[in-house]
Amino acid sequence: MLKQPYLLFLGDAPDALAAKVAQGIKDWRPDASVGQMRLEGCNADMDMPDMNVAEAVAAGAKTLVIGVANRGGLISDVWMDVLVEVMENGMDIAAGLHTLLKDQPRLVEAAERTGQSLFDVRLPQVQYPIGDGKPRTGKRILAVGTDCSCGKMYTACAMEKEMRDRGMKATFRATGQTGILVTGEGVPLDAVIADFMAGAVETLTPNNDEDHWDLIEGQGSLFHPSYSGVTMALIHGGQPDYLVLCHEPTRTHMRGLPHYTSPGLAALRPLAEELAKVVNPNVKSMAISVNTQHMSDDEAKAYLAEVEAEMGLPTTDPFRYGAGKLVDALG
Amino acid sequence: MLKQPYLLFLGDAPDALAAKVAQGIKDWRPDASVGQMRLEGCNADMDMPDMNVAEAVAAGAKTLVIGVANRGGLISDVWMDVLVEVMENGMDIAAGLHTLLKDQPRLVEAAERTGQSLFDVRLPQVQYPIGDGKPRTGKRILAVGTDCSCGKMYTACAMEKEMRDRGMKATFRATGQTGILVTGEGVPLDAVIADFMAGAVETLTPNNDEDHWDLIEGQGSLFHPSYSGVTMALIHGGQPDYLVLCHEPTRTHMRGLPHYTSPGLAALRPLAEELAKVVNPNVKSMAISVNTQHMSDDEAKAYLAEVEAEMGLPTTDPFRYGAGKLVDALG
Repeated sequence: MLKQPYLLFLGDAPDALAAKVAQGIKDWRPDASVGQMRLEGCNADMDMPDMNVAEAVAAGAKTLVIGVANRGGLISDVWMDVLVEVMENGMDIAAGLHTLLKDQPRLVEAAERTGQSLFDVRLPQVQYPIGDGKPRTGKRILAVGTDCSCGKMYTACAMEKEMRDRGMKATFRATGQTGILVTGEGVPLDAVIADFMAGAVETLTPNNDEDHWDLIEGQGSLFHPSYSGVTMALIHGGQPDYLVLCHEPTRTHMRGLPHYTSPGLAALRPLAEELAKVVNPNVKSMAISVNTQHMSDDEAKAYLAEVEAEMGLPTTDPFRYGAGKLVDALG
Repeated sequence: MLKQPYLLFLGDAPDALAAKVAQGIKDWRPDASVGQMRLEGCNADMDMPDMNVAEAVAAGAKTLVIGVANRGGLISDVWMDVLVEVMENGMDIAAGLHTLLKDQPRLVEAAERTGQSLFDVRLPQVQYPIGDGKPRTGKRILAVGTDCSCGKMYTACAMEKEMRDRGMKATFRATGQTGILVTGEGVPLDAVIADFMAGAVETLTPNNDEDHWDLIEGQGSLFHPSYSGVTMALIHGGQPDYLVLCHEPTRTHMRGLPHYTSPGLAALRPLAEELAKVVNPNVKSMAISVNTQHMSDDEAKAYLAEVEAEMGLPTTDPFRYGAGKLVDALG
């Protein structure tokens, strides 16, 4: 579990997209960070106070979170100097980079010397059990998608926010590195060993109050041949009471696979329900979440109305229009 | 890849069941082993020549395969003395034990000293790629089950044997530790990291001659919440042209999960086909393989006839009655 508050490190992010991890933290945990740190050449801005190390420490920052994708997978010398200085001033470092912090000798040396921690959130930190499929108390909602990267994390985060705003007990359960950095804990499911995937998800979503809601971040898609096994483990390990079906309508092919197209929402619904019924016979699809970022407002509204009519489920883009409609769907 | 021929190590197996790995090798690769090695108290017998280390070396054995499940997960001192002696006489050691060979200091020391290899077939030996779902040449048959441990490996092995006997090009593709020891290579799928499961299966079943058949060992079950993600990765990574549906009719609950019962063959067929169609629109269920070991001959025959009539697919127990009917189903 990461110590908050964070200092968001944007480094020399060439553009806003490179800083999407920082953006996710800003969007969903606006109070989690005391400020941002930008180096020369940074073209991203979270609209937060710019801080150097001393200022961040004075503001109470406990963990520097690398909120930027690094170029070419390397940690540059410029970054390295800052990261060492941060640890020397009493802060931990957390990152979801492909290049691991723990594989950088300078960082490992500094961590040992200062007693600070390096968190590579792509790596599991514990040994998970084998799943047992036993019914658990509390309620669970899982986001499942027609493809990878179609808005499952944002959907779960937006529903958590809306539910908390309504005074409901709700917890976003992160299963990917960005989600883990956003909320400070979770399971990096794609890095878990096959036999323990379902058990890891069970561990992430334990028994809870009967009126508590887990909002489980989905991964991959049943229709994405590279990652469908991870999706399957989420469906059975997560034991959802409700499914939110997620879709990005402008995709011409499955992410990263030009030779595959998604069969879409109408095919996803019965398949996901049938599989989820193995562990929870009462599971229902409750609503549809569409990522309309590549559509105009008119196009988006027309598309959402069309899907809602075709599928017979409340449909919205929770990032664009709020998650109220999704939470209302719980009745 | 393990060097053959093998010396089958039965150790102090308390009964025949404890030596089921050795039995699998004996059944499916009868020419792979020069003999067996039994220690005091061994109650298993593969009906092969008993050999000491010198005799095995003289007979040409290249690898001692631990064909017995060890008690309590430990490698006893009695075993250890033999294993070290074996390496000192020029043989490798292979095992699928929970207790890893590479975690035993005496064995590691002996391997380094002698230049022999220790193969823990539960552990992946290479870094697998992420799957890409691209169509591959050659034909593939995947065994899928209503539960774990219902005869998927035996079905694939029996079909390989029958196909080879008929002069067809056929290769059993192992995905579990027993299968890997039987055939000398494969992917220990349940120990692969989630993101690489489908890619590992693609690597295992590469492009091949158009008239070549891969017989892919299944794992887990779509209905088994602990391991369904592994099954899913096999269906999408294996890209099967045909499915063989495997079933053990005397089970009262899912293996290891007293609170789950399997929905059975009638539910498995459409679900497995729909999922397999994501990567191969022409996939078909071709036949049904039933494990009738807990039934009398009369019961078995009656049950097979009943399933065949209900499901409309050729149905047999390939271990009991041969795999001819399964291979005939290919037309």
